[in-house]
This record gives sequence, structure tokens and C-alpha cells, in this order.
Amino acid sequence: MANSPTGESVIHRLVRIISAFDAAHTAMPVSTLARRTGLPPTTTYRLVDEMLEEGLLERDPRGKVRIGVRMWELVSRSSSMLGLREAAFPFCEDVHAVVQHHTTLGILDQDEVLYIERLSARSSAVNIAKIAGRLPIHACSSGLVLLAYSPKEYQDRIMARPLTKYTDSTITTPALMRQHLAEIRQHGYAAMRGIIVPESSGIAVPVFNAENRAVAALNVIVPAREENTAATVPLLKAAARGISRTLGWRGELTGTVHRTQKIPVQR
Amino acid sequence: MANSPTGESVIHRLVRIISAFDAAHTAMPVSTLARRTGLPPTTTYRLVDEMLEEGLLERDPRGKVRIGVRMWELVSRSSSMLGLREAAFPFCEDVHAVVQHHTTLGILDQDEVLYIERLSARSSAVNIAKIAGRLPIHACSSGLVLLAYSPKEYQDRIMARPLTKYTDSTITTPALMRQHLAEIRQHGYAAMRGIIVPESSGIAVPVFNAENRAVAALNVIVPAREENTAATVPLLKAAARGISRTLGWRGELTGTVHRTQKIPVQR
Repeated sequence: MANSPTGESVIHRLVRIISAFDAAHTAMPVSTLARRTGLPPTTTYRLVDEMLEEGLLERDPRGKVRIGVRMWELVSRSSSMLGLREAAFPFCEDVHAVVQHHTTLGILDQDEVLYIERLSARSSAVNIAKIAGRLPIHACSSGLVLLAYSPKEYQDRIMARPLTKYTDSTITTPALMRQHLAEIRQHGYAAMRGIIVPESSGIAVPVFNAENRAVAALNVIVPAREENTAATVPLLKAAARGISRTLGWRGELTGTVHRTQKIPVQR
Repeated sequence: MANSPTGESVIHRLVRIISAFDAAHTAMPVSTLARRTGLPPTTTYRLVDEMLEEGLLERDPRGKVRIGVRMWELVSRSSSMLGLREAAFPFCEDVHAVVQHHTTLGILDQDEVLYIERLSARSSAVNIAKIAGRLPIHACSSGLVLLAYSPKEYQDRIMARPLTKYTDSTITTPALMRQHLAEIRQHGYAAMRGIIVPESSGIAVPVFNAENRAVAALNVIVPAREENTAATVPLLKAAARGISRTLGWRGELTGTVHRTQKIPVQR
């Protein structure tokens, strides 16, 4: 019923239309939209009319179409991301204020890091992590942290694929990757210099949810060779604990807890 | 082609499904979704399946459906709101750090204020402005600022409607409203105590775009009777000028510019 002669559903065509917009193309004439989606112009015009009517798209003052305010609102107010972003925000802000470098929050989605928050520094390192932007899992500190805390089967699946080399420092072999992931789990953070662009370093720590699963990575990006890892890591870890606790995490149940001292009962 | 037997388009039904989610209902079983949308269960199940396939919806660990990460990403990365939020963010952050109260950025949409950013204070005033939440134009300081800088025809249209009284301080008569709007324009800010909830005050200033149009309001929310208007207004005005300049605004061409002094030429 809802399918075109080619069997493509209305919803799939709607996704093709929305996907034609990105940060570099936020508004365009309908003719351009038809060209970018590859849909027949008549189909595009009809769908755009319906989407304009529902507020999913809107016209800008020059008559170009763009993603509608209503669409942003519908998605933003109900997204499960809102809870994570709201929990993380005050802690991200504190990190950002103290470190004075780009601070991001990223999650894993479709084997990539999707950045759901970015607090930018006005003058700081090159930062290629954009809000709602993606970076490859093996070539950013957030990705490596999230991978380090993922199940082994997932790690194996990622390492079975070719790992693109972005710089001389990108980790591209499973053996070296396994060594890095073990170190990250042991120390509780990743500090990587120039693995996607030579001039930036990333320092990232995991954020846990109530089920003790690493659901996000908190990350600062600093100019390469200006890392102050010794000072930054404790700050990031403390902030990540705060975010995790807000998400219902109750602290590690296993691991580095040692009970060698008998604690006297308070009377 | 894409219409149901009732003549309702697939896109309209998709909007009904997305609209069924909100901050209090971020995930639900498909049966609940059918009930909340009022669509027939079979239609709902079929549409949900298609939306799951496209990533517009996703299943949470308990099997409930929610707005998908992909949908958030598609909308966020291309929204015209992103430009405004990114331009505003560092300035909002500075205001928030100094004032230490809730700081919001709101735009006018469908005769209401839609909040596109909120930096919360950990302990501060009651703040009913949520990200992607709405407040009535006549009952919040952001709304009054945006109304004050709107064309007269638009103001008349808003004042022709019944204005809901939320508290004893809500402005509900056109005569009093006109007086307030004139004062806001004259002084360049709105400072309103308890007009929507008795315990909060709002102080808001306009943000202008390259066409010198007030496109957003920058707002701080403080506990009623703890306003420090004399200190807050200059800070807000300076931040709003910074945001406006980032948006391409080049300063007022008319208004309160006085040239009574001859400026000596530097040699």
C-alpha cells in the first residue's frame, strides 16, 4: 500500500530525503534535493510537500527547504540521548572549565563513535569530533575506550575488519590493538596521540550505566605534545564517576577492591 | 498511493508515532504506542517494523521501542538549530559560569517559546524550561523579549487571543502588555518575576541575526526575590552581542547611538 512501483516504502524514501541534509547542506532547493536523493523529481516534490505540511521540513526565507523546527523538537524531546546528555552536562562543563580544551561525550553506534555532546574551546586543538558527527572506533581515544570495555566477541569482530590507517600512529594490527585494549582496561583510560590527525591527542575514560556497562566515553582533545595526562586523567575519572552515578551506577563490584584492613566499628 | 483507507498519509501517521514519545514516555511497548497514537494496532505494528528497519526507532534492552539513535543523528547533524546553538554555546557557558543559575536559549515557533539549549544549575531556581520544551509566549521573559522585537501585526495577533493567567503576575491584558513591550524595547531586556510560576524570575535579552532580526532570547532563571538585575543585564547583553556577531549581526544601525563628542583622530 505504501510502496512505490519499485517496492520502496514511503518511510525509506523519507529517510533518503532527510539523509540528503548534513552540516554542509542544511538548506537546498527541492531540485537539488531530488538530485542528491536520486528520487524522481515528481516523487521528491510530492514527499517534500507532505513533509512541509507536517513541519518535518520547512522553507527558509530564500525559499530553500531545510529540516523543520518541529522535527528537531519531536526527536530531541523524546530521545534516549537526552537523558545521557543531561546527566553528563554539568560534569562535562566542569571538566571543560578546568581543562579548557575540547570536551566531548561519545557513544558507540554501528561500530563507530557518535558524538552526542561537544563543549568547544575557543582556541585549542584541532577537533574533528562534531555534535552528531562520527569517527572510526579504532582511530579515536573514545572509540578505543568503548572497545576496551566491550565483550570479546565484539572486539574480535572489529579486529577482523581492515583497520584504516589515518596517520603513522593509527593502530591497524590486531596484535597491537589487543595490547592497547588490555592497557586501557588495566589503567581505566586511553591517552592516544595523533591516531587520526597528527596534531591532536585524545584522553578518554568510560562512563557506566546502572547495569555496569560502558555506555559512553568522556574525552578531552588537546594539542599533541601538550598532554598533561597525569593531571587530566584523575579529573576525567572523577567526572565519569559522577556521570555514571547519575545514571544509576553503584561502583565496581569486582576488580581493584582490596580489603586488607579490618575496619573498626564506629560506636 | 501512500494513503490509508481513511486518506491519511504514511508521513502523517509516522508523525503521530513520533509524537507519542516525549520526555515522560521515551520507551514503550508497541501496544502502548498503538493506544497512544490512536492508530489501528496492525497499522502501528507495520509502521514500527519499517521504522525499526530504517533506524528511526530502535528497541531498548527490555524490548520496548524508542526513538532511534539514527533519527537523532539525522536530524541533529543537519538542523538549522545546530548553527544557532553552536554560535551561542560558548557565550551561554560563560554566562552560566558567572551567574551560576539556569541559562537558556529560546526561539519563537508556532507562537510559543521553544528552548533549544539549557545549561542547568545544580541547585538553583525552579526551571520549567526544558531542552525541546515549550512555554507560552506571554508568560516567560524570553517570550516577551521575542514578542517585543516582533512586527506590530504579530504582536496584535498574539494580543487578540485570550492570554492564560498562570499566576497573579501573568500579563493578561493587551494594554498592560503593550506597556511592557515598549519598556522591553526601550531598555533592551525583560526582567519578570513569577509570571508563570511564583517562585522563579526570568531575565532575558534578544539575540539578533545578520538581518538584524531578533531570532532568539538568552535567558537566566533565578529564584524570585534573588534577582540581581543590575549585574545580570549587562552580562547578558554583552553575551547576546557576542552571539549576534557570530551570527553575522553588525550592530544597530539606528537607535540609541549618540554622537555628541568629536572623537580626536589618533596620530
